[in-house]
Amino acid sequence: MDEVLADVIAKFKLLYKRDHPKETLQELADGKEFYDIVPEHIAGDFRKHIYEKGFFRDLDVIKDSQRVVKELDKKYDVFIVSAAMEFRNSLEDKVDWLVDHFPFIPWQRTIFCGLKIVNVDVMIDDRSRNFTAFNGRPLLFTSPHNKLINEFERVNTWEEVAAKLL
Amino acid sequence: MDEVLADVIAKFKLLYKRDHPKETLQELADGKEFYDIVPEHIAGDFRKHIYEKGFFRDLDVIKDSQRVVKELDKKYDVFIVSAAMEFRNSLEDKVDWLVDHFPFIPWQRTIFCGLKIVNVDVMIDDRSRNFTAFNGRPLLFTSPHNKLINEFERVNTWEEVAAKLL
Repeated sequence: MDEVLADVIAKFKLLYKRDHPKETLQELADGKEFYDIVPEHIAGDFRKHIYEKGFFRDLDVIKDSQRVVKELDKKYDVFIVSAAMEFRNSLEDKVDWLVDHFPFIPWQRTIFCGLKIVNVDVMIDDRSRNFTAFNGRPLLFTSPHNKLINEFERVNTWEEVAAKLL
Repeated sequence: MDEVLADVIAKFKLLYKRDHPKETLQELADGKEFYDIVPEHIAGDFRKHIYEKGFFRDLDVIKDSQRVVKELDKKYDVFIVSAAMEFRNSLEDKVDWLVDHFPFIPWQRTIFCGLKIVNVDVMIDDRSRNFTAFNGRPLLFTSPHNKLINEFERVNTWEEVAAKLL
């Protein structure tokens, strides 16, 4: 979900500007996590946001994801698999967000997990660690933090996912 | 989780007696779900309980499950996989219940799903439908509703799980 369907980085930027309107923020360079560019004296407090109720509830939808996932769903059994279990307070927010933005994916094909030990043919993910024990076709969905990783087939946009899978 | 680690039927019985102290309840015969023995004029209201916040929070732990799962966890990578996504309001309750009763299973090895498309070697489950697309070793954990099913290797207690897997 995060950084593939839901725009976590946009929310981070919004909260950062709200909390620290006078601080500058360096650009999110290739290979960097958002936390890496938050100044050290702010980082401790800033990390708390992701554990708050509501953080995941109003994330923007990543461009074209709704349309392409809906198309994919006609050809494949699409599952939405999120490493949500790290964040107890995200669970209801994520369910509600999916009902709002991906109502065509039923609860039967929604999975909240830690390690992604799912038995699927294709995995579209921004975290290459989820491909380590995966035997199917991995598609690394581009996010700033993964731009320096070269060993996986990459998709930069949902348009590119469509071109490869539809 | 339900009927394998957590005693849903005991909670159903408790709520039934609380709500309908003067109603009798027939025995939970082999092959029957609890809903099957709730009188028809009560069934509609009774089914709402499982969607309520708190329903899953205080379930009793199934006998010996903590001890045996802890032992299993030394020999195997134990994942707890619950078809929780059907019940949006169960998610936080289930996380909190697991933290209370199975604190040795980290969030990384906890999965809330609908269809159990997990890539594991052994699955201990009371619902035989979860074995349909499963290629590993299924162990059907006895619950009244599954007692008439004969096509799977069965475990009646956690002691029997221990005898087979430890």
